[in-house]
Amino acid sequence: MNIKITGTGCYIPSEIETNNNFSNHKFLHTDGSLFESSNEIIIEKFKAITGIEERRYAEKEHKASDLAFFAAEKAIKDAKIAPETLDYIIVAHNFGDVKHGTLQGDSVPSLASRVKHSLGIKNPKCVAYDLLFGCPGWVEGVIQAQAYIKAGMAKKCLVIGAETLSRVIDPHDRDSMIYSDGAGAAIIEATDRPGGIIAHESASFTEEEAYFIFFGESYNQALEKDHRYIKMHGRKIYEFACVQVPLAMKSCLDKSGITIDQVKKIFIHQANEKMDEAIVKRFYKLYQRTAPANTMPMNIHFLGNSSVATIPTLYDMVKNKQIEDQSIEEGDIVLFASVGAGMNINAIVYQV
Amino acid sequence: MNIKITGTGCYIPSEIETNNNFSNHKFLHTDGSLFESSNEIIIEKFKAITGIEERRYAEKEHKASDLAFFAAEKAIKDAKIAPETLDYIIVAHNFGDVKHGTLQGDSVPSLASRVKHSLGIKNPKCVAYDLLFGCPGWVEGVIQAQAYIKAGMAKKCLVIGAETLSRVIDPHDRDSMIYSDGAGAAIIEATDRPGGIIAHESASFTEEEAYFIFFGESYNQALEKDHRYIKMHGRKIYEFACVQVPLAMKSCLDKSGITIDQVKKIFIHQANEKMDEAIVKRFYKLYQRTAPANTMPMNIHFLGNSSVATIPTLYDMVKNKQIEDQSIEEGDIVLFASVGAGMNINAIVYQV
Repeated sequence: MNIKITGTGCYIPSEIETNNNFSNHKFLHTDGSLFESSNEIIIEKFKAITGIEERRYAEKEHKASDLAFFAAEKAIKDAKIAPETLDYIIVAHNFGDVKHGTLQGDSVPSLASRVKHSLGIKNPKCVAYDLLFGCPGWVEGVIQAQAYIKAGMAKKCLVIGAETLSRVIDPHDRDSMIYSDGAGAAIIEATDRPGGIIAHESASFTEEEAYFIFFGESYNQALEKDHRYIKMHGRKIYEFACVQVPLAMKSCLDKSGITIDQVKKIFIHQANEKMDEAIVKRFYKLYQRTAPANTMPMNIHFLGNSSVATIPTLYDMVKNKQIEDQSIEEGDIVLFASVGAGMNINAIVYQV
Repeated sequence: MNIKITGTGCYIPSEIETNNNFSNHKFLHTDGSLFESSNEIIIEKFKAITGIEERRYAEKEHKASDLAFFAAEKAIKDAKIAPETLDYIIVAHNFGDVKHGTLQGDSVPSLASRVKHSLGIKNPKCVAYDLLFGCPGWVEGVIQAQAYIKAGMAKKCLVIGAETLSRVIDPHDRDSMIYSDGAGAAIIEATDRPGGIIAHESASFTEEEAYFIFFGESYNQALEKDHRYIKMHGRKIYEFACVQVPLAMKSCLDKSGITIDQVKKIFIHQANEKMDEAIVKRFYKLYQRTAPANTMPMNIHFLGNSSVATIPTLYDMVKNKQIEDQSIEEGDIVLFASVGAGMNINAIVYQV
């Protein structure tokens, strides 16, 4: 028995937010002081580092669980399964359903219950729950689905990553330009087809790293103290990720018995282009190799960082040949790798 | 190999909130109209149905993750394990860390990361994540721990349920009297000792049931629309639970091969005394039996409904002979059963 992704889907919200839309923002340092450079320069520098030119925001009437439902519908259709045969619906997110223009996230009932409700699945034995694991939540959901299948507790699982980061950003924080909204989903199935999950790796770094990404006050000290936003210590994350992610990827690959030269593609969490490039470069360096051209598909340029949604969205787009010069074929070895709040890191070696 | 609870712990907050403390509340109907009866009568009726005389609220300086940490420390000590040997830390909750006097729940980083940080565990391979599954979250966490152990992905897991419902209650809602704060934890281990988890059952009912428990506005329409609280359709939940929970318990027991007469204790989610009694009565009726006296230990009278925390707290107290006339011995067959937001139901047949 193998454990494979038998269907994928994603939802890309229609609202395009260009870098230009941030040109009137009053960007502040963490201490509340104004940046010396003009927004034009700030935005240019931002684009050079992160690669992000534009990002997507959810339509005002939609919440994270709606995006999750749209992606789930497509994954189910792609896998050609009957929704009622699903054993698990796992939704990875971090902030719950944040209604446009409101402060409080809402995860009661769980987003998974909402998705199951929207899908119209009646079978009560289809267990729906939410998983909070930072940006690596979707990859972790796949690892959990694998556990249920291996333990004989499931045959078919729907794993979704959905987030609306646009609803938790501090407009006075330069980092707010990174974040976006989206959802990606996959069906994970026990199957006799060749390939599937070969090895996985999960890790939680919770010494000082625990608070590298956190929920904090606006840099504008005049704003209400009570209102908190997604915040990060970017420099520390960069340094941490560039060391630990390549090591986790190597640990995963070494466990799999696959050689570095067999790896066709690396689907890495779309956090920041320069950081992702540095991670992949270092990963190959651990094997005394140079990363081959075209190994790392990217969609961050026009989709930004949608947290848990980036990897399933990217995988779905490459599978469907929607990213220029990128494709995967049956039998290809690919790596999934993610890093985010927790700080959590995970990786999967997978044969398409 | 068996999968057993090898240590337990709980944290009971020190702030005692008596029914009397609600006597000045202005209780309203869902439509905002005032109750005709006096608060004295409302509270008396409340006590007669739910069994709740007093409940505990977290100290102002503590959040759900703090309560989780306190319970976790005790469970680790009780199990006599080295914290660094833990493979998983799973924290079940529903509203995240809600700082006293604030509106927004906070689960970035996850509560599990915070607990791991507080425990000082350095081993990155100890994976820390949060699970949202309504009140049955802790039981579901045990079921997930079982999956990792069966799949060969873990040997020792720490499963915690922690919640501060006092921070999400509408003071104009009679149901606010039900809710309380607390945390319970257990170490789940692969072991050669006899007993352990024999069977489990999980279900998510997400047709109209999905929204029986939800995050909604105050019954006081003069209050800000944006501020939401835990809300429930009590009557519908009662009817649902009295039918579906006994059936889930029966399905679980029948899978286990254990007979009804072997069941010594039922640790049921402390939601409402009359409802819990009705559930257990109906469960025995499905086997043409009458529930034996003393089968269902209860602590709701002085602890209220602390959501995910009720079952691990109750189990810990009975194990430690802190509930009058209640005890468990090695070899005893017990049932765990829970119902809550989702609407989710689960059960475990367990040999002590």
